[in-house]
Amino acid sequence: MAPIESVTVSPEPPQPPYTVTVGAGVLGQLSVPGRVALIYPEDLPPQWLQQAQTSLQPHVALRVPARDGCKTLAVYTDLLSQLAQAGLTRQDAVVGLGGGAVTDLAGFLAASYLRGVSFYTVPTTLLGMVDAAVGGKTGLNLPEGKNLVGAFWSPLHVWCDVNTLATLPPQTFREGAAEVFKHSLIADPALQERVLDPAFGPSDPQLTATVAAAIRVKADIVSRDPREKGERAFLNYGHTLAHALEAWSGGRLAHGDAVGYGLHYAALLGRALGLADVTARTAAFLAWQQPQPLPPLSFEALQPYLARDKKADLGGVRWVLLREPGQPTLQHVPLAVLREAFRQWQADVYDGSNALS
Amino acid sequence: MAPIESVTVSPEPPQPPYTVTVGAGVLGQLSVPGRVALIYPEDLPPQWLQQAQTSLQPHVALRVPARDGCKTLAVYTDLLSQLAQAGLTRQDAVVGLGGGAVTDLAGFLAASYLRGVSFYTVPTTLLGMVDAAVGGKTGLNLPEGKNLVGAFWSPLHVWCDVNTLATLPPQTFREGAAEVFKHSLIADPALQERVLDPAFGPSDPQLTATVAAAIRVKADIVSRDPREKGERAFLNYGHTLAHALEAWSGGRLAHGDAVGYGLHYAALLGRALGLADVTARTAAFLAWQQPQPLPPLSFEALQPYLARDKKADLGGVRWVLLREPGQPTLQHVPLAVLREAFRQWQADVYDGSNALS
Repeated sequence: MAPIESVTVSPEPPQPPYTVTVGAGVLGQLSVPGRVALIYPEDLPPQWLQQAQTSLQPHVALRVPARDGCKTLAVYTDLLSQLAQAGLTRQDAVVGLGGGAVTDLAGFLAASYLRGVSFYTVPTTLLGMVDAAVGGKTGLNLPEGKNLVGAFWSPLHVWCDVNTLATLPPQTFREGAAEVFKHSLIADPALQERVLDPAFGPSDPQLTATVAAAIRVKADIVSRDPREKGERAFLNYGHTLAHALEAWSGGRLAHGDAVGYGLHYAALLGRALGLADVTARTAAFLAWQQPQPLPPLSFEALQPYLARDKKADLGGVRWVLLREPGQPTLQHVPLAVLREAFRQWQADVYDGSNALS
Repeated sequence: MAPIESVTVSPEPPQPPYTVTVGAGVLGQLSVPGRVALIYPEDLPPQWLQQAQTSLQPHVALRVPARDGCKTLAVYTDLLSQLAQAGLTRQDAVVGLGGGAVTDLAGFLAASYLRGVSFYTVPTTLLGMVDAAVGGKTGLNLPEGKNLVGAFWSPLHVWCDVNTLATLPPQTFREGAAEVFKHSLIADPALQERVLDPAFGPSDPQLTATVAAAIRVKADIVSRDPREKGERAFLNYGHTLAHALEAWSGGRLAHGDAVGYGLHYAALLGRALGLADVTARTAAFLAWQQPQPLPPLSFEALQPYLARDKKADLGGVRWVLLREPGQPTLQHVPLAVLREAFRQWQADVYDGSNALS
């Protein structure tokens, strides 16, 4: 009998606490009161859609474009009309089944249809489980930028069926692993060991425990800081460089890959400043993750993208660093240190073999 | 020196209490921290736009179609991009200046841009001041129906400059008066006298006090019931027939006119059931309001529209009625009583002169 784990998340009142259920086969146990509008992406493996439909018996099932193709106002506008035509009321619910993009879209739909209806998620990617599913952020992209429109709207229950991770492309699983590893670095040293264990992967017998532990790190932080006023910033460990790389690549670099790169850069900064030295671990993770290779890139070219970080204040960008493993801190870093660490980072991550396609 | 009145509204936490400032000339006193995106309708009299721009110094001023023409997802989508292009951040604010349609749109924009920014309103119609400005409801229409998308998002301050009411078409002022009169019926007998006083109008020296009293009725109710779980339903006095008439007319009947008709019908129902008899007052109000005349209409034709009321439960529609003036109650009404009161209502409101154009 495979274990089932539960994590409790406490959003900002008046939204009630909710449970994240993690385990193999939980797709067969979905239970939602009221009529259900099920939102799922066109690239969802058919068996997961079928299992969800069997257990949920949705009133309507609405297919949307894959990945960020669904996070548009055009898709949102179309879905709102479909909910109205299906006659869904305030007693009914929206369920998002798929990766983080679909649950972000479904959440904003639930937050705004009839000024708010019940929302549930069934993430089917590792990134969706350990990052998007917890924290209440929902949203869409604009042509002007990512996640520029949305709402804080928490689900009433999240089901993470780890069986779905076995049908992901290996690269997509490793992408999500970057967020698991990040959670381990900022809060859970034991989780570090699990991620760096050779057994870690979609068929790891410890997968339920690992996913639940990663979710627990984020759940604890967002429960203490639901509106991103303080320590929630620590979840951005590695993300200052990651977001800059994503923007610089024009969206061609996957988020999890960018985070893998960013974690190593943050580790190098910490070492340079005499804080914790986790560089051997982030290098080991990168070697396992095999993120998409980068084309040649100078610090000067990346600098304007780094400056856009939302954690910037009048003194410049504030970086999440580790005083000790599991003890994050937020601080400014001198430009000379940033530049020298970037040189070291380049030496570590470039193998010269090929470039971002 | 003209009086300035203040009303405090307490929305659902974590949203903070806010003040509604009512008075002549308050448009010159607007004060908003951060940069401002000002949203206003194309039919706004130029002097009000100019006064607001002088006191607010907006970063951007965005013009939208008049009345419900602005409450569309197309306008919303366009405004989101304009806010992003203007570089507005979470420290900035959206200000809605105009009637209830514009403040509804601006509120949903503020609720969802960057997952929520500060929101302020400057209503310039009587309906916008006494109804839309208080209660936190924001929203847009869908082709499938009105207000089917939106959020609860309260302003941080509301300024009601009663000078703006003098530039309204007289019919638009009288439309808003229906909501003032409704507030007086459900909670404030002294306010009834003011509305039925021959001096009541845009140049009434008591106008600030009257508007503030009407706002106070709604503010008190929504502060006790921000999410429409209980007594907030009392604000729907007269609205069951009103919404049915609006839907039946295909939107050609103005809301305030429909409310005028609906108040008299609710009064007739109350009298028929042996509750309070306010029929003489609602008839006097109707005679003053001169709502748009209605074409011939049978109870049977209206019945399906009445049945859609959101206050319906398994026992049918629940009507807001008055036990005593100022003491609303919610109850089912037998079909025979509804039909007989409708016959009486027809006799009272039809003068046979002309029909809804």
